[in-house]
Amino acid sequence: MSHDLIKNTLLGRLGNPMLNRLDDSAVFDINGRLAFTTDSYVVSPLFFPGGDIGKLAVCGTVNDLSMAGAEPLYLSLSLIIEEGFSLDQLERVIRSVQEAAAEAGVTVVTGDTKVVNRGAADSLFINTAGVGIVPADLDVSSSGARIGDKVILSGPIGDHGIALISQRERLTFESPVESDCAPLNTLVKEVLQTTPHIHCLRDPTRGGLASTLNEFAESSGVGVRIKEDKLPIKKTVLATCELMGFDPLYIANEGKLVAVVDSRDAEAVLQKIRENPYGREAEIIGEIVEDHSGRVIMETRLGTSRIIDLLSGELLPRIC
Amino acid sequence: MSHDLIKNTLLGRLGNPMLNRLDDSAVFDINGRLAFTTDSYVVSPLFFPGGDIGKLAVCGTVNDLSMAGAEPLYLSLSLIIEEGFSLDQLERVIRSVQEAAAEAGVTVVTGDTKVVNRGAADSLFINTAGVGIVPADLDVSSSGARIGDKVILSGPIGDHGIALISQRERLTFESPVESDCAPLNTLVKEVLQTTPHIHCLRDPTRGGLASTLNEFAESSGVGVRIKEDKLPIKKTVLATCELMGFDPLYIANEGKLVAVVDSRDAEAVLQKIRENPYGREAEIIGEIVEDHSGRVIMETRLGTSRIIDLLSGELLPRIC
Repeated sequence: MSHDLIKNTLLGRLGNPMLNRLDDSAVFDINGRLAFTTDSYVVSPLFFPGGDIGKLAVCGTVNDLSMAGAEPLYLSLSLIIEEGFSLDQLERVIRSVQEAAAEAGVTVVTGDTKVVNRGAADSLFINTAGVGIVPADLDVSSSGARIGDKVILSGPIGDHGIALISQRERLTFESPVESDCAPLNTLVKEVLQTTPHIHCLRDPTRGGLASTLNEFAESSGVGVRIKEDKLPIKKTVLATCELMGFDPLYIANEGKLVAVVDSRDAEAVLQKIRENPYGREAEIIGEIVEDHSGRVIMETRLGTSRIIDLLSGELLPRIC
Repeated sequence: MSHDLIKNTLLGRLGNPMLNRLDDSAVFDINGRLAFTTDSYVVSPLFFPGGDIGKLAVCGTVNDLSMAGAEPLYLSLSLIIEEGFSLDQLERVIRSVQEAAAEAGVTVVTGDTKVVNRGAADSLFINTAGVGIVPADLDVSSSGARIGDKVILSGPIGDHGIALISQRERLTFESPVESDCAPLNTLVKEVLQTTPHIHCLRDPTRGGLASTLNEFAESSGVGVRIKEDKLPIKKTVLATCELMGFDPLYIANEGKLVAVVDSRDAEAVLQKIRENPYGREAEIIGEIVEDHSGRVIMETRLGTSRIIDLLSGELLPRIC
């Protein structure tokens, strides 16, 4: 079955000269600084408003590479399939992989499939690893934030997590929340072309915006100060969070980025982000400060200050 | 839990400057031809004579890179952990990862952990992807075999599969079979230094020696002819195969290689392989022929000829 599955479903959709060789490794020329990343996807349900595990697996890895400033080039795709999993659903997932890879301009060059006995895995897990090229003079890292820098968020938070949880809990809304799952490599490229003074870049996935900002604060040894009234959040997302007792700051996103930028360039970067389809609702949400080093503080709408802690434990399991 | 797990268990054992940054991507300089590969490991049981899932995950990916002629450099490590999985066992697995990586001279530079609810995965799955550098003038591929070439096997077949199945079925032997799980990068390097005329190189894992030889025959458009009396097989492995109705040609190996070599260099390569601890029992097992293109034929001990077909379906599930 594995052999046929590979030949028909996988190569049929994803085939290219490198993958078609079916050698154990893909081989290609590279010169420069390589970014290398991996993620396993165990999202449940597999299909959700705005995406599925296949789209997520491509976008997640493309975005991890992009946040290192890299141009994503090649992906690996490894499937762990539960015996009895529907071939139709597998086809749908592979079609999503194909579409997302095409949009991001990346190629799946190597892969693996394992079938496990019924009950040994929940339907389908996917691992994607990826490689990309980082421009020679670039240095973005979560440790690069400097006092006075501005913090830019590319759009409303919480969509992915709330889309998932709504699907799981069978909540219905007048305007259903869709996952923001999207490849951000073009957006990142445009940002990096605007100014060399991008100090940190990260996609706030698991653990949400709060975790990303805490990483910046901790790694850079600075304080982060954000304003609640600047945070873009969709009404339905906010309402669902209130209903279910979630804080949107901790909800996963799969198509957003947070950039820490030299204050002189912040407006130009903001405008550039807003010109991209995935960045229309971008905002400058705060700044890097000398006070409360290692901590994130939010000025609330009420004018008070609130510490935004790193969450211990996972808020929503199997969100990606 | 994830956060502590990463900081203590994973970084404690595997820590290095790149991994410790905990950025989403590792970044390093590369110049040349890159080999890139991935494999997910779902082996059951996790611990078996001669290895465990951690050692297997490192060796498997190191070997996939090596078979492209690459020097393996960097690995990613992604864990899917079932909720409630023992931390002690996880520590043992990570220790094996550490030891195998040290022996192979590779570094784990990026990773991911996902915890799924109880029952959604069977204990622990691991994905490793890897990158390595291929010497500029090298061209090994399963399509490179030429008429007259010799086929060299680096040692006895079937040890990994039989070690696994014996553990599962609780068979006991006077001399228990251990998995041959081992990193072959040094052996490959030595082989490639002996002669530039290595045409194919592959590790006969899932599907065993039979599948590897069939790949060579099909991809190269040649016939492969092997001699049964030249095949190294341990007595206990042979006995277990007879007992359980398996053909050792189809049993997985995790520390063996098959090389197709220009006949003029075959003896020199054989001697070189035998000097390596993982190749002491190497043999020239056959040759590439013009007849029966695309097929593998074995001359049996009885003097008859037998077609060695590609196996349809998986003989032993979750062997790696």
